[in-house]
Amino acid sequence: MTVSDVVELEGHIIDSGLMERAFTVVMDLGGEFDIEEFEVGTTKTAESYCRMRVIADDEATLHPILHELHQSGATLASPTDATLTPAPADNVVPDGFYSTTNHPTDVRVDGEWVGVDNIEMDCAVVVEGVERSDDGSVGVPDRADVTAETKVLNGIDAGDLVVTGDAGIRVKPPERPRDSSGPFGFMQGGVSAERPSRSLIRDIAEAIAETKAQGGRVLCVAGPAVIHSGGGPGLARLVREGYVDAISAGNGFAVHDMERSMYGTSLGMDVETMEHPRKGHKHHIYTISEVIRAGGIEAAVEEGLITEGIMYECVTNDRDFVLAGSIRDDGPLPDTITDAVEAQNAIREQAREADLVLMLSTLLHSVAVGNCLSSTTRTVCVDINPATVTQLLDRGSAQAVGMVTDVGTFVPMLAEELLE
Amino acid sequence: MTVSDVVELEGHIIDSGLMERAFTVVMDLGGEFDIEEFEVGTTKTAESYCRMRVIADDEATLHPILHELHQSGATLASPTDATLTPAPADNVVPDGFYSTTNHPTDVRVDGEWVGVDNIEMDCAVVVEGVERSDDGSVGVPDRADVTAETKVLNGIDAGDLVVTGDAGIRVKPPERPRDSSGPFGFMQGGVSAERPSRSLIRDIAEAIAETKAQGGRVLCVAGPAVIHSGGGPGLARLVREGYVDAISAGNGFAVHDMERSMYGTSLGMDVETMEHPRKGHKHHIYTISEVIRAGGIEAAVEEGLITEGIMYECVTNDRDFVLAGSIRDDGPLPDTITDAVEAQNAIREQAREADLVLMLSTLLHSVAVGNCLSSTTRTVCVDINPATVTQLLDRGSAQAVGMVTDVGTFVPMLAEELLE
Amino acid sequence: MTVSDVVELEGHIIDSGLMERAFTVVMDLGGEFDIEEFEVGTTKTAESYCRMRVIADDEATLHPILHELHQSGATLASPTDATLTPAPADNVVPDGFYSTTNHPTDVRVDGEWVGVDNIEMDCAVVVEGVERSDDGSVGVPDRADVTAETKVLNGIDAGDLVVTGDAGIRVKPPERPRDSSGPFGFMQGGVSAERPSRSLIRDIAEAIAETKAQGGRVLCVAGPAVIHSGGGPGLARLVREGYVDAISAGNGFAVHDMERSMYGTSLGMDVETMEHPRKGHKHHIYTISEVIRAGGIEAAVEEGLITEGIMYECVTNDRDFVLAGSIRDDGPLPDTITDAVEAQNAIREQAREADLVLMLSTLLHSVAVGNCLSSTTRTVCVDINPATVTQLLDRGSAQAVGMVTDVGTFVPMLAEELLE
Amino acid sequence: MTVSDVVELEGHIIDSGLMERAFTVVMDLGGEFDIEEFEVGTTKTAESYCRMRVIADDEATLHPILHELHQSGATLASPTDATLTPAPADNVVPDGFYSTTNHPTDVRVDGEWVGVDNIEMDCAVVVEGVERSDDGSVGVPDRADVTAETKVLNGIDAGDLVVTGDAGIRVKPPERPRDSSGPFGFMQGGVSAERPSRSLIRDIAEAIAETKAQGGRVLCVAGPAVIHSGGGPGLARLVREGYVDAISAGNGFAVHDMERSMYGTSLGMDVETMEHPRKGHKHHIYTISEVIRAGGIEAAVEEGLITEGIMYECVTNDRDFVLAGSIRDDGPLPDTITDAVEAQNAIREQAREADLVLMLSTLLHSVAVGNCLSSTTRTVCVDINPATVTQLLDRGSAQAVGMVTDVGTFVPMLAEELLE
Repeated sequence: MTVSDVVELEGHIIDSGLMERAFTVVMDLGGEFDIEEFEVGTTKTAESYCRMRVIADDEATLHPILHELHQSGATLASPTDATLTPAPADNVVPDGFYSTTNHPTDVRVDGEWVGVDNIEMDCAVVVEGVERSDDGSVGVPDRADVTAETKVLNGIDAGDLVVTGDAGIRVKPPERPRDSSGPFGFMQGGVSAERPSRSLIRDIAEAIAETKAQGGRVLCVAGPAVIHSGGGPGLARLVREGYVDAISAGNGFAVHDMERSMYGTSLGMDVETMEHPRKGHKHHIYTISEVIRAGGIEAAVEEGLITEGIMYECVTNDRDFVLAGSIRDDGPLPDTITDAVEAQNAIREQAREADLVLMLSTLLHSVAVGNCLSSTTRTVCVDINPATVTQLLDRGSAQAVGMVTDVGTFVPMLAEELLE
Repeated sequence: MTVSDVVELEGHIIDSGLMERAFTVVMDLGGEFDIEEFEVGTTKTAESYCRMRVIADDEATLHPILHELHQSGATLASPTDATLTPAPADNVVPDGFYSTTNHPTDVRVDGEWVGVDNIEMDCAVVVEGVERSDDGSVGVPDRADVTAETKVLNGIDAGDLVVTGDAGIRVKPPERPRDSSGPFGFMQGGVSAERPSRSLIRDIAEAIAETKAQGGRVLCVAGPAVIHSGGGPGLARLVREGYVDAISAGNGFAVHDMERSMYGTSLGMDVETMEHPRKGHKHHIYTISEVIRAGGIEAAVEEGLITEGIMYECVTNDRDFVLAGSIRDDGPLPDTITDAVEAQNAIREQAREADLVLMLSTLLHSVAVGNCLSSTTRTVCVDINPATVTQLLDRGSAQAVGMVTDVGTFVPMLAEELLE
Repeated sequence: MTVSDVVELEGHIIDSGLMERAFTVVMDLGGEFDIEEFEVGTTKTAESYCRMRVIADDEATLHPILHELHQSGATLASPTDATLTPAPADNVVPDGFYSTTNHPTDVRVDGEWVGVDNIEMDCAVVVEGVERSDDGSVGVPDRADVTAETKVLNGIDAGDLVVTGDAGIRVKPPERPRDSSGPFGFMQGGVSAERPSRSLIRDIAEAIAETKAQGGRVLCVAGPAVIHSGGGPGLARLVREGYVDAISAGNGFAVHDMERSMYGTSLGMDVETMEHPRKGHKHHIYTISEVIRAGGIEAAVEEGLITEGIMYECVTNDRDFVLAGSIRDDGPLPDTITDAVEAQNAIREQAREADLVLMLSTLLHSVAVGNCLSSTTRTVCVDINPATVTQLLDRGSAQAVGMVTDVGTFVPMLAEELLE
Repeated sequence: MTVSDVVELEGHIIDSGLMERAFTVVMDLGGEFDIEEFEVGTTKTAESYCRMRVIADDEATLHPILHELHQSGATLASPTDATLTPAPADNVVPDGFYSTTNHPTDVRVDGEWVGVDNIEMDCAVVVEGVERSDDGSVGVPDRADVTAETKVLNGIDAGDLVVTGDAGIRVKPPERPRDSSGPFGFMQGGVSAERPSRSLIRDIAEAIAETKAQGGRVLCVAGPAVIHSGGGPGLARLVREGYVDAISAGNGFAVHDMERSMYGTSLGMDVETMEHPRKGHKHHIYTISEVIRAGGIEAAVEEGLITEGIMYECVTNDRDFVLAGSIRDDGPLPDTITDAVEAQNAIREQAREADLVLMLSTLLHSVAVGNCLSSTTRTVCVDINPATVTQLLDRGSAQAVGMVTDVGTFVPMLAEELLE
């Protein structure tokens, strides 16, 4: 006695790797398959179709196979509605809740597919605009009111109707572009260890310029190394000229940036810094103290305390910034959001609005932003540590490129490409 | 016309590097010196004494030299009282505030030296038990009531009497032990890349055992890699048997640990994990969700949800733990302190009570703990990334040792050394 | 006007990734395809077949596409004989020579497929046993005498018949095993950063034990860090007990190993080493000097100079070792092959005989050995630097696993697993 | 009963760290000291003097202390002549041979100090121009003929008079410059992780320019990553314009450089390279094959095969280059020195002639060159891997600076600084 179910795969399922992944999943998880139909797209633009029966010895084997196939983009041949189960309590998911990927996703409600808003990884899907009877059946008073969106655990309220099980869900991982030319072509390349650095910086500049030309929004996630390594002035120019629309950073980043403005940087001072690494840390504390006294970053800019740098450009050009607190912070600044959940929510909003995210030398903040991104958002990750770049690219963005380089040379070169 | 001042250096000032550092500081910062008296300890145990006049062209040159000499352990030959200035507002330091090192420090109040409590780097020093007139003079109603302690910026209240300037302060960097044998001898070794791993683990075990034998307290700062790499059971045993008194970690660490307890780990599952890295992330969310439902970690242990692992051992053996939140967290757990300032305060208390700190595979939490440590606290830092180990050891602890190794092999070997 | 050619793909072409790769190659290199026939294996064990016409605007576009398809495992639908062109001079390849992959390969000579012996990456293929007329036609006096084998550039003699162009060649990249269980199942896992270290060591031990049980040969490529980190005694035991059949290393490895035997290691001495890194380097030179005086490693063992360690076990148990010289070497030892070409040839022989290669903490020697390996040889690569592991695994072995760990804890744990 | 001996320290012994090191050595190695005289230089330029009796329980304890003090720059108070012992055989050192540091060194022969030529680490010192009787006494026929020089093990001939023991040797570690300003001031800085990258590149450019202005010689040690990352054209310009006088590299570096010249680099091609890392490896083999056919690099340039790049500039501008072979090499080129000992000798000559060495992205070649350098040669080490930079700087050069950056951005920026 075996159990089985039928799944379908559609699209450019061969060159996107979906077919390979489907076969692999079945075999690795101990199942068998029987290809019931396979129509291969005979030309480059034609789509393919595959209907495959998945067979396993028992439900316990079959279920995880179907789950993985799902997450990869396969759909059940005979879809049923998604099961909706009320959350038993605030911040608690019902048993068997469906945990999202970062790919565009639909859920089936009352026979129709509804797109899930604000797709983000590892969330629950909550459906609104439906009525659920005690027997689990779902009614739809007004089709137009039905919506589905992702919710993180701390956003779930008792009674929220959460999608459970794997039925009635379809996931659409982004496909490989048909054409690898154009400025975004390079974006499929993963970590580019052996590529000429300057050419790659030129490509990234082109991607940013194109995003802006199309009215898109560029979010820059930046770590304090941007300032230490001398990337501050370049990034400030990019903010001023509108190539960077928003900054997502931490308390330290902002303090270092404003300290540069408040206490200057002569070469002599740099030399001292090199020789006495602890030196000038007092400036760091002073900077925070003065900004607190002024009443925050905007006030400090307005009273003329801060006269240049990234935070200055953000304030004077009205660019959005989020400073998320961490347990390493001195101070912190009044602008720093010290509560992690509140900070995540602010980051989530930045991430959702971004069309291209430039991650510069910060693992902590880049992971936090990356967690909130859909797989369709373009991402550029720059770090001198290859392990950081690899970790960030592994999160499954379809259009992500990594560059292992020195942010202190990267930022000025990028600014030159875009501004000169 | 030149300006000058006289400083004194006392103790094992040659082999501790203090003399070298003093000479270097004067020369690098553009001064001259004139050795007025130098008595060298003629034997290993005899102390040395040096009185040196520091000469510079102007006050602007002299001042930073004196400041650096101070921070290194030199004292003014003719000490005056510390200057006390009221903080102008909450969280704001007065101009010229003295920023602490992590070395034992005294401040001179009304002619007598007062030890600074809870010494920690980059803090202000606040003196209590004195009365300050408007002319800045300080009165001492009752000598016994005079205390001094460090305060971070967010702990400062308007009106707090903060030490400003460099006068009336003396810093005592720890000296090199006279004898490098014994279990702690190795503790001076810095990063040990070329040392036999097993011997070094044995030395670390001995240091922990000795700390416990002397009634000391061991704090373990641990990252999620401890769990991923298989170090969980070993660390749980060390907690149970009392070799680790407290855990300082993040939300993810606790969740991974409890997920292991709640969902088990067969070899088959591990293989799957390896092949499908996103797999099982649902378990991660479930774990949090269930612990929230139970009402927290202690409640989850009590209701039998969690039956083994590090958090389990902490609860059942009444070991202190702090889970500090970060913007990467899922959930978070009810026990996680999401506010960064509040979390820092909890970490600060752990750090102050610790006699030996074992930092395992976490840069974020280790830096946070390290920031709160005196230079006299023994620290062992273990990470597979040499840059992390170097960064943590650079913070100036006098008795710190780093080991670049795999925490997944380190923890079981350490547990074997201590427990078998 | 377009040009086209027809290629065939056969086998488990979907889950091996061959189909995906074929589609990708055509699209990335600017071609189109037309699937003329596609029979998908409808069950896990059934093979698939695809005949695809590749279309391009001109020969200059078509040719690289066909070349890449070839290298990936596609074959021309209407194969012709391989073109054989005489090498114009010693160490010089004819124009258009075919450069090998590391996958099993056949060339077609006089209508029949001949396997290429000693397959190795980036080589030329030389055919013997044929007669070539001036018009390029090839005659086969005796079928049984026809052989083909790889030759590196410095092995090519003027007049050697070298395969040129892409015709008449078929490449068979290894397929994914149908079954991922068993000791070698894990071998598909790539770099295992998040896997429990001890479990992975257990799997590697099992793979070595199984290789030996099947009469296979284990080659260990080892760097000096094996000795520094304390892995020497463990590796020596593995050599003695026959779990390691051959050692491929450098001059420094052997010297460090023998220095340990000649000058002993007390704990006191290790501590000194840690404090004075240059200390004992004289022992290093002495060791070499004494072995030179004795007449080589074997002689030094025989005269009782060397009484333990890896080299000792190699000599007394008659295990093969190759010491390849490098420009960093002190000495060198009389046994060290200082000529790079000669050393490569010795390494090549070791590599060809190996069934499992264990690479421990050496990039230079591992790359040299890896260059000579067929894609079907099992490889385990262990290093504390993730970049090294990634670079070694990228070379395209089908059964390669990497582990980022401390070789100083890895070797003793591996020895315990195998010997206790 | 104790044993003792008297050593003297002279110069800027405090700020050079010599006093500290001397005290530390005595204490760590189990001795006692008695300071018999100590005159401290009372001003910045005045030298200090210390006479110290070192006391130990037995000769076995005393000897290593004296040895270490020696190596650090202490001299015996009552110097005797160096002991000279004939080498027992070719490539074999006599018992107790003195192993050199990389600091300037003198040996005492017949009552007078003779400078050791070609100082290099871990060598023996061979004295010529003296006659040795069987009783070990040494006669000097003509004072003017007495010379001493370092010899590596493979340069020692039977009968060479080798310095043994520690007597009659004085080592002069370079002192800290009295003044840290000027272009070379930064050269004391070690690894500069937190320094603005562009400022540091400017400093390095200035150091190169000053070296050239003073008639010095710049040696560039370069790895293949210089070419991959796009640094080739910049380095070629530096060679052409005379800022780099010599290149020390490997076979792969030269091949990659010439391949760029022979097969061009369009953007399209780069993109392909990124997508298909093995692609174009055939070009690599072709390049070697063609250069072999031409008869070598110079011939290939002359016949117009190579028309640009670093090797081209070396040939046409008559810059010295050494290509040292390794076991990873393809080919190799006819110019590559495949024998490691021969290659070391060629590298040794380059190193001795260099006044500033720029090490770019190669650990193997940088270590080989670094092994041959005196501690007084300025060294700049650039690599993206911090562990590589640290390892290279640890070799004890007095004027070494490291920069952790991307060589693909470093080289163009350096060329711009020097040439524009």
